[in-house]
Amino acid sequence: MESPGQRLMRRLDEFAHFSDDAGRLTRLYLSDAHRDAAKQFLAWCGEAGIAAKLDASGNVWGRYEGRRPGAPALMLGSHIDTVRNAGRYDGNLGALAALAVVEELASRGERLDHAVEIVAFGDEEGVRFPTTLTGSRAFAGLFARSALDQKDADGVTMREALTAFGCDPDGIGALRGRNIAGFVELHIEQGPVLEAENLAIGVVTAINGATRFHARVKGVAGHAGAVPMGLRRDALAAAAEMILLVEQRARIEDDLVATVGRVDVDPGAVNVIPAEARFTIDIRAPRDEQRRRAVSDISKRLSAIAATRHVELALTQTHEAGAYTCHPAIVAALKASVERAYGTARLLPSGAGHDTMVMGQLCPAGMLFLRCKGGVSHNPEESITVEDAEIGLAALIDLTRNFRASAQPGLAP
Amino acid sequence: MESPGQRLMRRLDEFAHFSDDAGRLTRLYLSDAHRDAAKQFLAWCGEAGIAAKLDASGNVWGRYEGRRPGAPALMLGSHIDTVRNAGRYDGNLGALAALAVVEELASRGERLDHAVEIVAFGDEEGVRFPTTLTGSRAFAGLFARSALDQKDADGVTMREALTAFGCDPDGIGALRGRNIAGFVELHIEQGPVLEAENLAIGVVTAINGATRFHARVKGVAGHAGAVPMGLRRDALAAAAEMILLVEQRARIEDDLVATVGRVDVDPGAVNVIPAEARFTIDIRAPRDEQRRRAVSDISKRLSAIAATRHVELALTQTHEAGAYTCHPAIVAALKASVERAYGTARLLPSGAGHDTMVMGQLCPAGMLFLRCKGGVSHNPEESITVEDAEIGLAALIDLTRNFRASAQPGLAP
Repeated sequence: MESPGQRLMRRLDEFAHFSDDAGRLTRLYLSDAHRDAAKQFLAWCGEAGIAAKLDASGNVWGRYEGRRPGAPALMLGSHIDTVRNAGRYDGNLGALAALAVVEELASRGERLDHAVEIVAFGDEEGVRFPTTLTGSRAFAGLFARSALDQKDADGVTMREALTAFGCDPDGIGALRGRNIAGFVELHIEQGPVLEAENLAIGVVTAINGATRFHARVKGVAGHAGAVPMGLRRDALAAAAEMILLVEQRARIEDDLVATVGRVDVDPGAVNVIPAEARFTIDIRAPRDEQRRRAVSDISKRLSAIAATRHVELALTQTHEAGAYTCHPAIVAALKASVERAYGTARLLPSGAGHDTMVMGQLCPAGMLFLRCKGGVSHNPEESITVEDAEIGLAALIDLTRNFRASAQPGLAP
Repeated sequence: MESPGQRLMRRLDEFAHFSDDAGRLTRLYLSDAHRDAAKQFLAWCGEAGIAAKLDASGNVWGRYEGRRPGAPALMLGSHIDTVRNAGRYDGNLGALAALAVVEELASRGERLDHAVEIVAFGDEEGVRFPTTLTGSRAFAGLFARSALDQKDADGVTMREALTAFGCDPDGIGALRGRNIAGFVELHIEQGPVLEAENLAIGVVTAINGATRFHARVKGVAGHAGAVPMGLRRDALAAAAEMILLVEQRARIEDDLVATVGRVDVDPGAVNVIPAEARFTIDIRAPRDEQRRRAVSDISKRLSAIAATRHVELALTQTHEAGAYTCHPAIVAALKASVERAYGTARLLPSGAGHDTMVMGQLCPAGMLFLRCKGGVSHNPEESITVEDAEIGLAALIDLTRNFRASAQPGLAP
């Protein structure tokens, strides 16, 4: 007989066939593959006897009533869109695990003091249109109407794509989850911390805020043979010192991370001293105050390097997003459930953004992370074990059974 | 009345109109512009009463006899090909200055104990075909016959181009300058040393040898938010440390220079920890032993950085050329002439390669450097002053008058 974890893994494998590309998993928002996946999700809800429907933004939403109809709900879920050439667990794990939880309750005819709602958000990754997190934004009543006019690479607007999908674009404005007492998302970690500590599962404390910069260093080009070291204003050597500074500043504090992911050099020839170097900086931390201090330190120290080396530095902020602190009552409930299901509950921040941070604007919200092989995600190599899936499901089911809607101080009336 | 320096500058301006491109100076080996420039050079020789001809490789060669016909010659010259979008002084200055020296002698009917030969090499830059320094190699009897089969970007072989130019490709093998007692090239510095020291002219001691590497650093990609600093193997951060090491090692010794001119990063996204970084290293020094020590130190220290950071490093040597030490007797003669003409003679190495290093295989050879604005070359911004041109000409004429063929121990019989 198939265990719940085995069934979840089998379904994740089946679900991975809903793809826009042959031979690899790509499932963009409002694509044919998304439609087929949403239909399958609705079909599974139907088989389990759970009322479900597509909302105006393309999310699949289902509700399993509690003992008393109309009770506040605990909502579980994640997204079912993917990046191009994706792994099968990012997002899909949380959506299908939510389904598995209500199936488990339904199969036993088990009714709780609260309802359980499940959701498969249609867009989190933001690959097709410029905006990200469209599904959870719409569900939380935070959708910006102007997004409907955004176009994909083929010139199709989001409004046209929604209509073709069978949704009513003008209905999105009226969406907003009601009487949701809490939201919990199970997701792969997309990082190596749990694996490094030999742990299957962890409780997320916060989703990192992020600040991004574009840095441009202007030096002076010159002949690689003819300009003595003392007369150089080498833009790349200056950038190298700055890249090391960014790394060193992040290393001195727990939970702070900083990355230079890209460098471009002009003119970029083996025998010419670089005239210009451009690079990106991405700084993240679970506490905004911590991130702001790091940003301020890094800016100052990069300017000092530029001054010492007589090069020009222009730092342009390209992105800023505040951290989301998971709701303390949800974190406490998840910690207790993980301890019961697994024995030990590691608390850790999330470096990546998730639907949870949007849902946190609507109701108390939190996340569970499941160990993934090598910390790899956004890649076909993405991998989790059936044993870990079992542990994740057990924790979610424990949480669902022990959830107390009245214990959530942020509950909307 | 026009001074010799003024005439030289005027001719350099006129000569710059011989270009393959409209609106900028590009004069590739064996192009129409090269033919027109060579014809003009021959015409100026004819006007001055100097015997001149095109050799089998496309060089213009002229001879001004001494008191005794057939005497050993001092040869003066440089190249008249250019890079694309070039300045007007690189190469052309030395070729037209050589012409100016014999014109000065001829206009006075002044005959010396030695002959004076002048040359305008057809290819030094190596822009059209893969090889460089074709003109001086051919003249020095060092031309590799296989070069005739090399093709330019349009598929034209060097053999075809030579024939179309009016040269006999099969005659190149028989070329070899005879009875040349010394070669001297006047060239712009292409570096900032003379300008920084407020000097118009300098005597070159050696042409730097060079070693080039391609470095490939392999780390592990990861999510910029999700991988803690302590678990990263960031290929770019490792490369940045290596780039700084290269710079620091070169800084501790006079005359040694090292440059990282190019970096490429994979995958190169703002939110992904770099998996791979590739960069070039160019190390040059006027003494081979000095360069070899630096290469060895840098290789060892880069490997140590890779080991500490748990990344892989592959270093591939892509180029090696030994230094050319200018002939001591030529350096001494140039130093004396510059002191007489200018008062002070700064000795400095050349970071760039020049025809002189090839001619040094045929006969005693040396160079004079003229200050150029900002050290800029290979660029329309290339600039020298008429005052400096006057000083360069004065030094060359002094050298020519005071040259003693018998004082050159390397003289070919």
